[in-house]
Amino acid sequence: DAISAARDAVTRLRGSSVDVVGADPEVWDGSGLTVREARSFGEGLDLIVAFGGDGTLLRAAYLARDQGVPLFGVNLGRLGFLSEVEAAELEAGLGRLLEGDYTVDERMTLAVEVHDADGAVVGSSWALNEASVERVSPQRLMVFEVGVSGTNLARVPADAIICATPTGSTAYAFSARGPIVSPLVQAILLVPVAPHSLFDRTIVVDAGERLEVEPVDGGEAAVSLDGRESIRLPDGGSVRVVRGNMPVRMVRLGEFDFYRRVRDKFGLR
Amino acid sequence: DAISAARDAVTRLRGSSVDVVGADPEVWDGSGLTVREARSFGEGLDLIVAFGGDGTLLRAAYLARDQGVPLFGVNLGRLGFLSEVEAAELEAGLGRLLEGDYTVDERMTLAVEVHDADGAVVGSSWALNEASVERVSPQRLMVFEVGVSGTNLARVPADAIICATPTGSTAYAFSARGPIVSPLVQAILLVPVAPHSLFDRTIVVDAGERLEVEPVDGGEAAVSLDGRESIRLPDGGSVRVVRGNMPVRMVRLGEFDFYRRVRDKFGLR
Amino acid sequence: DAISAARDAVTRLRGSSVDVVGADPEVWDGSGLTVREARSFGEGLDLIVAFGGDGTLLRAAYLARDQGVPLFGVNLGRLGFLSEVEAAELEAGLGRLLEGDYTVDERMTLAVEVHDADGAVVGSSWALNEASVERVSPQRLMVFEVGVSGTNLARVPADAIICATPTGSTAYAFSARGPIVSPLVQAILLVPVAPHSLFDRTIVVDAGERLEVEPVDGGEAAVSLDGRESIRLPDGGSVRVVRGNMPVRMVRLGEFDFYRRVRDKFGLR
Amino acid sequence: DAISAARDAVTRLRGSSVDVVGADPEVWDGSGLTVREARSFGEGLDLIVAFGGDGTLLRAAYLARDQGVPLFGVNLGRLGFLSEVEAAELEAGLGRLLEGDYTVDERMTLAVEVHDADGAVVGSSWALNEASVERVSPQRLMVFEVGVSGTNLARVPADAIICATPTGSTAYAFSARGPIVSPLVQAILLVPVAPHSLFDRTIVVDAGERLEVEPVDGGEAAVSLDGRESIRLPDGGSVRVVRGNMPVRMVRLGEFDFYRRVRDKFGLR
Repeated sequence: DAISAARDAVTRLRGSSVDVVGADPEVWDGSGLTVREARSFGEGLDLIVAFGGDGTLLRAAYLARDQGVPLFGVNLGRLGFLSEVEAAELEAGLGRLLEGDYTVDERMTLAVEVHDADGAVVGSSWALNEASVERVSPQRLMVFEVGVSGTNLARVPADAIICATPTGSTAYAFSARGPIVSPLVQAILLVPVAPHSLFDRTIVVDAGERLEVEPVDGGEAAVSLDGRESIRLPDGGSVRVVRGNMPVRMVRLGEFDFYRRVRDKFGLR
Repeated sequence: DAISAARDAVTRLRGSSVDVVGADPEVWDGSGLTVREARSFGEGLDLIVAFGGDGTLLRAAYLARDQGVPLFGVNLGRLGFLSEVEAAELEAGLGRLLEGDYTVDERMTLAVEVHDADGAVVGSSWALNEASVERVSPQRLMVFEVGVSGTNLARVPADAIICATPTGSTAYAFSARGPIVSPLVQAILLVPVAPHSLFDRTIVVDAGERLEVEPVDGGEAAVSLDGRESIRLPDGGSVRVVRGNMPVRMVRLGEFDFYRRVRDKFGLR
Repeated sequence: DAISAARDAVTRLRGSSVDVVGADPEVWDGSGLTVREARSFGEGLDLIVAFGGDGTLLRAAYLARDQGVPLFGVNLGRLGFLSEVEAAELEAGLGRLLEGDYTVDERMTLAVEVHDADGAVVGSSWALNEASVERVSPQRLMVFEVGVSGTNLARVPADAIICATPTGSTAYAFSARGPIVSPLVQAILLVPVAPHSLFDRTIVVDAGERLEVEPVDGGEAAVSLDGRESIRLPDGGSVRVVRGNMPVRMVRLGEFDFYRRVRDKFGLR
Repeated sequence: DAISAARDAVTRLRGSSVDVVGADPEVWDGSGLTVREARSFGEGLDLIVAFGGDGTLLRAAYLARDQGVPLFGVNLGRLGFLSEVEAAELEAGLGRLLEGDYTVDERMTLAVEVHDADGAVVGSSWALNEASVERVSPQRLMVFEVGVSGTNLARVPADAIICATPTGSTAYAFSARGPIVSPLVQAILLVPVAPHSLFDRTIVVDAGERLEVEPVDGGEAAVSLDGRESIRLPDGGSVRVVRGNMPVRMVRLGEFDFYRRVRDKFGLR
């Protein structure tokens, strides 16, 4: 599993005189590994290796982005769209990393602000896959006012409104019937989840535009970021999403072929 | 609004020597109206009048069904698929009711059982629109094993799995991109909400078949009935849905034209 | 392939003293087999065996229905939703047929009429899967007026409007994003193909209702029946679809499990 | 209608000493207007005014692009996504044009090549909205091999495969359930029409990538460009689509607000 794979990798890396630090005290306490806090985790690191599914990688991305540390994902989950290797390929992959034989692929992020009813910023964070504005209470219908760069577009009763990057187009946005978007495309997706209206399409806006989502009816709302973090909206509050000012950097062992990955992960052909 | 419309109607009906009882103490205490408990609300009544949106009507249906009392819906909400008249038509509508000038339209219901891991029934209820098996915690993905009458059909990662009547096909099932189904059709709809899989279609099964939904991964789950009531599933539990043994009876002032209603409510043409 | 499989089967059946006749002169001329005309093909037959894909089975159904002859499909095509056995299972299947060890499953059909601008019937036929009203010239957009049992429902610009049986729900109606419908359900599906409108849902009407499709703009139109036959509409003409007065009878070697077939053919799970 | 609106505009423009030429001999013969051939139509022109629906504008774009002449669309059709003014706004619009009070908005095009079985280019053209690879005969199913920049992505049985620009995302691609894409996004959409497979999503590729569509089964095929022109594919042929080397230039009388247009044309809110 993920933990034993990680421990094996640590042994291997230390054997090659690589300095290794850990992120999760529950895993590494007693192992002799220094465990760093999230806030300063990425400082001075050459690379972060994440073991698990896409959820793990999304949390690791949060530790890696601000210092620009490249991220290497080892898939131990279900689909694993974000990982670069499967568990069985880890041994060979580490060899490549040690030789510096890899490239780095930058992925656009989203900057997310929560505004209160007066327009003041009361919270902010960022996401690699998506920011999803959702109802908090499990009552059925929330109405969202959705706009782009100052233009009101539609009032949509729905379970949630997803703002996603191209990287996120194969994640929750895919579930909501959005298109699959190449990471080369500079765009943000606006995808309604279970909209109770004839209008149920995805809108693909330019990455230079700003998405605005305001819950106008239906109780308390929150914005969920990559399923990693959730920020409650104040009464009358809204969410604004623009392109993030820093990308997440992903390690690639070969040329990244997005369409091959889509084909293989979804079992096309 | 709904309360004043209801009070006006009560005055009108009492003026015509009709015995009237109320359901909601907050509304009727001090009005001289007898307020009945939910359990025995329908006993001996000729008719139940519900003022509000479809949510109100769904709760009223719960009071009306077991005694077979016809339900008359006055729409004060948004779409109001279930109501027979809009608020402005209430006056004329009450006149028709008093003269007995109406027909009754029976709508199929769903009988819903919650089973524990050993197959024992640990909860049961019914629904007019839909039973939705959902995750309880707002984490992203729950995996559902879905079957029909003993045959495993698919394992679907999704936000929820809806089992809906034709009546419910214009409600939450519609949001999940299901088809619109005439209430004359004897069928149950199986609609995945935001499925993370290529397979995202609605299955329409015969009303004599049995739907089985079992959450197999993703934490705690519950089944929500018409947004009125929610039953928590035990660990390893599942939900079984068959046609209900009693219909809900709806008052119609004229011939009910389902297609005209769909056209008008969704603004087609 | 289909022809050699058919020839092998003929040899086997004749060896068991079964009288065999053929449908296609190109295949059977010179074989000693009597070749019958389509019009009277089914007369006096106990069973019709069809070798090929679903297209072949749909043509065979046309030969079989009016005399009520059961149809046994041997799949040599791609998906083969309608066939009972794959080619490899043919040998065993014929044995079962010879012993009379099979049941018959009746499938609803559609009766299709073409009306001219004055409402006179100018053509009629029937279908097992679907009747699709389509533009004839490959220009882009045709506008269809769609109604049910006398009520106008919507005016839809689209490539085509499909009226399908539950049996047809896994065929062209599936391509047009319709639901999968159990053959037990007594219903007809109305599915727009590539509609240029927000409204793009399937309507499932009761099998006792009547569908009306009238091309009102976009040039010449035709109705295609199971991809087997196409009837041109006169100017101002329309198509009416109701439940057919006779079913198609399909041979089953075991209990027919629709959901297992859907699962296996679409590769679910 | 379109012709009388065009004639009125000609009178107005000539009264302001503007040199005017016509495109359609049937409309302009006898009017004193010089009628130019399509090949050289745009030479030396400051502006082209198109009267009609989007189909007319797409044909006018074909006359305007190569010389970079800005195009001004006057809507006399149904939705008119491409036009800048409605007929009623024409008078004021012409005044703005005469004063030079307008801006120009460039829209990406697609370059389309038809290859034969040996990979030789046997035809080429371009499109503003979409190139749609379609079956020629009205038989039901054609199988398409679809790839991006050398990677095979999927084998899709479908009515057609659309390659669309963001401008085309509200046209035929919308009918095929594609997303709505801002014209600011540098991307090409790949949208299957009525695919007979679980995989039915739009793929949004970067405008620097190359789409490849090859019909592999189902008879004769053609590629249709903006519904304006159709090129037959040779046996074993295929279609390649990349970003066009020249945009179409559209006249704007005010700041172009894509989201307002989407909202108004589709009747959102």
